[in-house]
Amino acid sequence: MSENMTKRYDVAILGTGPAGISAAITLTIRNKKVILFGNKDLSTKLSKAHEIQNYPGFPAIKGDELQKNFLRHLDSLGISITEDQITSCYSMGDYFNLLSKKNEMFEAKAVIIATGVNFGKPYDGEEQFLGRGVSYCATCDAPLYKGKTAVIIGQSPKEEEEVKFMTEICSKVTYIPIYKDDVKVSAENLEVVHDVPLRIEGALKAQKLVLKEREISADGIFILRDSVSPSQLVPGLALDGNHIAVNRKMETNIKGCFACGDITGTPYQYIKAAGEGNVAALSAVSYLA
Amino acid sequence: MSENMTKRYDVAILGTGPAGISAAITLTIRNKKVILFGNKDLSTKLSKAHEIQNYPGFPAIKGDELQKNFLRHLDSLGISITEDQITSCYSMGDYFNLLSKKNEMFEAKAVIIATGVNFGKPYDGEEQFLGRGVSYCATCDAPLYKGKTAVIIGQSPKEEEEVKFMTEICSKVTYIPIYKDDVKVSAENLEVVHDVPLRIEGALKAQKLVLKEREISADGIFILRDSVSPSQLVPGLALDGNHIAVNRKMETNIKGCFACGDITGTPYQYIKAAGEGNVAALSAVSYLA
Repeated sequence: MSENMTKRYDVAILGTGPAGISAAITLTIRNKKVILFGNKDLSTKLSKAHEIQNYPGFPAIKGDELQKNFLRHLDSLGISITEDQITSCYSMGDYFNLLSKKNEMFEAKAVIIATGVNFGKPYDGEEQFLGRGVSYCATCDAPLYKGKTAVIIGQSPKEEEEVKFMTEICSKVTYIPIYKDDVKVSAENLEVVHDVPLRIEGALKAQKLVLKEREISADGIFILRDSVSPSQLVPGLALDGNHIAVNRKMETNIKGCFACGDITGTPYQYIKAAGEGNVAALSAVSYLA
Repeated sequence: MSENMTKRYDVAILGTGPAGISAAITLTIRNKKVILFGNKDLSTKLSKAHEIQNYPGFPAIKGDELQKNFLRHLDSLGISITEDQITSCYSMGDYFNLLSKKNEMFEAKAVIIATGVNFGKPYDGEEQFLGRGVSYCATCDAPLYKGKTAVIIGQSPKEEEEVKFMTEICSKVTYIPIYKDDVKVSAENLEVVHDVPLRIEGALKAQKLVLKEREISADGIFILRDSVSPSQLVPGLALDGNHIAVNRKMETNIKGCFACGDITGTPYQYIKAAGEGNVAALSAVSYLA
């Protein structure tokens, strides 16, 4: 589950949408050692897109077709995808320490954040109780809840694996899927509840999750999203509303940290994201020099 | 040659590189009436590119192949290219007046400049004598030089048509090609000179072109480039060095005037240009609303 050997890279790229893969492609061509965190299916938004009309060169292409072309491009350059999610990223001055959901540590001289805008608005109380009964990472914090009760909010079916794992650790797990697909995970000590989470309440630590139609008390409240909100991810990162503030070079306020794609603001467009990924990559190349 | 009927559009796009065509594609999808000025072969730089490795979705594609894909995309949306060059573009407050090399007038509510960086550095004396013996447009100014002498500097073989036309008007034409291809135009009163232009000298008006190895006196000095320098093109446009100053929305300092692609600065990359064209288009859509 955990490895003590830290892995070192020139650039860590967070996200496999068009921005992240564009950055990975350009950095690889420029001979940089990159690690690309994301999903082997790249982006749910992309693969489910009915038809994309304005990615120049591909007239009226289905999302899954463009996805295949992107994957073919990554393959042709030998770029692999690390199926893990970075949950925190700290600037150490001239490099970054990154911690993943699978509890691995990475080091990179520069970081490119391309995690999109699927991080959701934090629940009331979420940030207040983070680290005090609220967690974003089942794998990391499960040991703290051995034999205890947990409630898990999941943003997509891929969190069900974590839920299964938690049922093996906790005495009771309540799972709240906030997606429409059928829940496929089951266990004797698992209850699946369909309801809308509203806020987290507690005193010194989080005590219960308040939903639209009920309240659930638990020792631990886990919120599992496709991506972490940027202010949680990189402490000190300057935002512009819900987006990461960047200049035309895709530089953030933190030295060596770049951002691109939807997370830097509208328009939320594939070709805009791909263009920004290229700029972020070349700015990182300059930074590394 | 000239038409009195002014043609009216929502958006005029200047340039058919990846930025211009990306803008045209997105604006067409958004049901805007666009006119796209450029060349039917899109971009010499693109079509001559040996191999492009980092346009995501097309692994290691030859320039002429990407060009074909772009043309197919334009065709699929019924977007045509107007093979003419805008030589001046004036903001009239809530619309723009555009004048072309073929001496046609156009009106557009918004303008997107995507003319690339092939405009070259002005020669000493060029801006000083512009309109006083120096011209950028043979077709427009030829009548002034009937029976007189002209010297023409041409940036690419496609200017040779203009040279031919000038030999029919002037008593003598000296042509200075500043490209490597063979010159294919010929006429009794045409002399082709291979030399490096340095500066234009004169008094009240331009009198001679000083080259590295000789000087040539003429009544008119024509400088024919692939594109006009942005400060000549749009009076009052704010620059940042040799580039047009833009913000993240691709807005220039002039209301309704947007810019994208190489002309807005480095990196000079196809995917960056295509992304910016999309952003400029959607900013123009907001502006028109």
